[in-house]
Amino acid sequence: MAGRTTYRDLADLAAHIRVASGKEPADLVIRNTSFLDVYTGRFLSGDVAVYRETIVGTQQRYEGLEVVDGRGAFLVPGFIDAHVHIESSLLTPERFQQAVLPSGTTTVIWDPHEIANVRGLEGLTWALEATEDLALDVFVMLSSCVPSTSPQRELETSGALLRAGDLALLQARSRVLGLAEMMNYPGLLAGEPDVLSKLFLFQDRRRDGHCPGLRGKDLNAYGAAGIHSCHESISKEEAEEKLQKGFHVLIREGSCAKDADALLPLLDDYSSAVIGLCSDDRNPADIAKEGHIGFIIDKALRGGHKPQNIFRAASFAAARAYGLDDRGAVAPGFLADVCLVRPKDGRTWTSGLAIEAVYKRGRPVDRAALAASAEAFASRPQPRWGSNMCLAPCRAEDFDVPVPAGASPHVAPARVQARVIGVRTRQIVTDALSASLPAAGGLVCMDLQQDILKIAVFERHRRTGHRAVGFVKGFGLRRGAIAASINHDSHNAIVVGADETVMAAALNHLIHIDGGIVVAQDEGTIDSLALPVGGLMCNRDPQEVAQALERLRALAQAMGCRLPEPFIQLSFLALPVVPSLKITDRGLVDVDRFQLVPAAY
Amino acid sequence: MAGRTTYRDLADLAAHIRVASGKEPADLVIRNTSFLDVYTGRFLSGDVAVYRETIVGTQQRYEGLEVVDGRGAFLVPGFIDAHVHIESSLLTPERFQQAVLPSGTTTVIWDPHEIANVRGLEGLTWALEATEDLALDVFVMLSSCVPSTSPQRELETSGALLRAGDLALLQARSRVLGLAEMMNYPGLLAGEPDVLSKLFLFQDRRRDGHCPGLRGKDLNAYGAAGIHSCHESISKEEAEEKLQKGFHVLIREGSCAKDADALLPLLDDYSSAVIGLCSDDRNPADIAKEGHIGFIIDKALRGGHKPQNIFRAASFAAARAYGLDDRGAVAPGFLADVCLVRPKDGRTWTSGLAIEAVYKRGRPVDRAALAASAEAFASRPQPRWGSNMCLAPCRAEDFDVPVPAGASPHVAPARVQARVIGVRTRQIVTDALSASLPAAGGLVCMDLQQDILKIAVFERHRRTGHRAVGFVKGFGLRRGAIAASINHDSHNAIVVGADETVMAAALNHLIHIDGGIVVAQDEGTIDSLALPVGGLMCNRDPQEVAQALERLRALAQAMGCRLPEPFIQLSFLALPVVPSLKITDRGLVDVDRFQLVPAAY
Repeated sequence: MAGRTTYRDLADLAAHIRVASGKEPADLVIRNTSFLDVYTGRFLSGDVAVYRETIVGTQQRYEGLEVVDGRGAFLVPGFIDAHVHIESSLLTPERFQQAVLPSGTTTVIWDPHEIANVRGLEGLTWALEATEDLALDVFVMLSSCVPSTSPQRELETSGALLRAGDLALLQARSRVLGLAEMMNYPGLLAGEPDVLSKLFLFQDRRRDGHCPGLRGKDLNAYGAAGIHSCHESISKEEAEEKLQKGFHVLIREGSCAKDADALLPLLDDYSSAVIGLCSDDRNPADIAKEGHIGFIIDKALRGGHKPQNIFRAASFAAARAYGLDDRGAVAPGFLADVCLVRPKDGRTWTSGLAIEAVYKRGRPVDRAALAASAEAFASRPQPRWGSNMCLAPCRAEDFDVPVPAGASPHVAPARVQARVIGVRTRQIVTDALSASLPAAGGLVCMDLQQDILKIAVFERHRRTGHRAVGFVKGFGLRRGAIAASINHDSHNAIVVGADETVMAAALNHLIHIDGGIVVAQDEGTIDSLALPVGGLMCNRDPQEVAQALERLRALAQAMGCRLPEPFIQLSFLALPVVPSLKITDRGLVDVDRFQLVPAAY
Repeated sequence: MAGRTTYRDLADLAAHIRVASGKEPADLVIRNTSFLDVYTGRFLSGDVAVYRETIVGTQQRYEGLEVVDGRGAFLVPGFIDAHVHIESSLLTPERFQQAVLPSGTTTVIWDPHEIANVRGLEGLTWALEATEDLALDVFVMLSSCVPSTSPQRELETSGALLRAGDLALLQARSRVLGLAEMMNYPGLLAGEPDVLSKLFLFQDRRRDGHCPGLRGKDLNAYGAAGIHSCHESISKEEAEEKLQKGFHVLIREGSCAKDADALLPLLDDYSSAVIGLCSDDRNPADIAKEGHIGFIIDKALRGGHKPQNIFRAASFAAARAYGLDDRGAVAPGFLADVCLVRPKDGRTWTSGLAIEAVYKRGRPVDRAALAASAEAFASRPQPRWGSNMCLAPCRAEDFDVPVPAGASPHVAPARVQARVIGVRTRQIVTDALSASLPAAGGLVCMDLQQDILKIAVFERHRRTGHRAVGFVKGFGLRRGAIAASINHDSHNAIVVGADETVMAAALNHLIHIDGGIVVAQDEGTIDSLALPVGGLMCNRDPQEVAQALERLRALAQAMGCRLPEPFIQLSFLALPVVPSLKITDRGLVDVDRFQLVPAAY
């Protein structure tokens, strides 16, 4: 990928030269635009001529088989999402492209971390195959931290374990750019052999970073180990230090983590060559409502940033950071990935971004065609992975929390002290709370008065029977239960609820639909979104999925839920590498001490 | 080369991490500097810690086995020469490094075009081998246009012919980055199969450009064919169009071609990410006197350019343009190629650049050690290429120009009309002049009154016996002769002189020393610089070579020569792809009509 355009053969190369020279007509000419030159930062005038997939001429006048009148719009390079987990869109790749291509994203760099945690090497292989013949260009970084914690610690049961040797099998596949976000920075700093092996294996490729809050010498060590990027900065100062230490800072605006406001002040003429944009995790409702990478551009423009800087970051800078030298500029020899855009009010960029049309490899992006192509995918053979939900149906009793043997319940009404996961709205860190809960019949009970609900995780990958039940505060549910097969990173089955019978019903329904998201109002009133691909994704119209998600969210809110993003927040409660108290299928995890702790004591 | 530092093994990686973390001392700490951050454009303070060949820490305080006090100097990334013909230094690579490393150049990208014209594939292979274990990092672009004109045209006899299939043999060698300057842009635009084959072969690698004056649709076609750079712009407008069309513009300041004044105005915060610097052809005297890439930086600083822009162009921008992602920044994980610099007057950059020290892969550049290492090279087995001068000794009669059969000499003194190459000072284009010359004994004579001398080219590669004699104006020689085995691109033997007997003596001496540069004052007073490697280069101390060159130049001037760079100008008189009238071993070439023409008519 060190080159520009690639040609099929000599005749193809000769044809590109002839068309560029004006000896033969172009396939497409886009006329009457101001197109961005990402080398000098100026908007230029003149035709942009496209032959097959490539821009072959700019500035001069061309004849074309098709001529598009840009009517004074601006033409900029297609946007690149420098770091995304497609799984977070709940959509399979062909549906993801249907959602994001029309919004201007023409290339994404995917870390298939979620499906890798569920299906391991098979999942990574599927990720490569499922993106093979999309219009959207999907490059892949191979997931570096599967599972999130070392298996020796037995803190969780993941669907898979990926060692350096596994990644080596896919290293040479086309579209693989390197090693995905190295989240295990403590392991890196401690020199853990598995981490070092992976870094070593990819030492002549890109190695993405993920190091929230890492500063000073630890950050130096992270860079000295060859990590070239980070998308996890939350303050300007942190991101500035990362830039100063040679990391490509990727400004992220996901559904949960939103860093653009904090980091955009770092963008200027100079840094726009090395700062990229990314979505990381973005749900289908947000993509439908706000767009994708265009949403960050819109924010920047409304914030008064120069268009030449934010558009360069969104394209050329990301392309160069990842060695994708065939894209990111509106110039001869570059892929014809371009967006026709305007200021929202037609006059000033501070009104925001309006996207009029998108061209991918020279072809107009057409919503109907994308939908039809995604439908066609649905009729293809699907991955033969067997069931996503390898666990037995459950009963209300499975959610019992016995009063611990050593505990001495107080006088009637008997009460027991319990650890409670304290959920913070829109954050993935939790508080390790403690509460006094009622006990009855030798069991510790929830307490809706205090908003203390039960939460449980059931292993779903290999019928180990592992399950754990604990308590959580912050959801606000007054009744019913929510269950899902999405929870980072092991993606076991998680259920939260105000009633054990309904929790069991929700979980059983989740098993019944073979994974997805379930909202049960009571034992008999259950709504759901099935996610048949790994229990994470589905091939359904993105708008439909967005609507289903919003409907489920509204249901949860009607049941009392106070969290604006209940499913995303739920999905991070089993991630034992983010403080402070989490729950996995093996039990409650005190993340600060990195060990299992009992729910009641 | 998509990565940062490379490690020898896991233990080496672990050691880098430990040192960067501050757990073990660094090999080298450079303290008390302002070091340039090429990501944000700021000069930062704090230590720069180096372990083995790599920068492992910046900003924080480190302990080091060796600590260097920068005493308030500035620390910038080592300079990259993005396009050089090392042969033009007259030095073998180990001597070239001795000349340029101390001046801050730590990486060069070599097109071994001259030795390739003399020795073909063998020459390219030698170029790779001769640069294998230098301190200086030498990357190689494989020469695309050997010989300069199609052999079918029989306009010249080169030492070699390189077809796409020949280049394919070296394509995968380490340090080969791609295809060198595609000078045959008319061939490219015409779709010549040999040109297209070479472009196609390197379509996933870098393909350098060389297209003086190319504009508009032709320039578009050049870019659409995948060319990514050009170092041949001579006006700001031309270079600006090239940038706007996605070419990396390399600002060149050679011994002959000097473009910095014209092109530096294009350098700003934005473009400093995509503009590189190069020397192309620079003789040893200029390197010794003015420096190398540092000379362009000095010019830019004196011209008021921001240091962060010119230093970024000289390092990071060039590195990224060529995919050398392990260098070009003072940051953890990047090679410890750094220069300690100051404003010349110690206060303001507009006083120019002073270089205090250079570190290559973490080791201080030491002139004595470089000299010793180059001496050691001299004792190695040299390329067994046989003689550089495969031609028979000549006599004065070989320089005869007979009065053409059809010519009708005027009345006594008889005169004949002749074509004369008009040399322009410091330019490689010539004028096609016509003059009336005296004739005697059936031969056309030179005319020192008009400064019209004889010039001859003798084939020297394969004993074809081809030779041609013509006339030239502009040297100003009143006596003696100059001969050389350097002349672009075929590098046959060329001789210019005011007397046929001395011309023969000069050429015979050139044969005697097996190639080089010869200045003959008369038959018996001959001085020379032998260039035993291909008749182009020598392994001798760069200062000595510079002095020899200056001594020969002074001799030529004492003989009446008016050209400040007589040897360089002479070396371009046989290049039949640069207008207007040139001479090769096959005859006088009318470049505008691309055909051989007689000297007298």
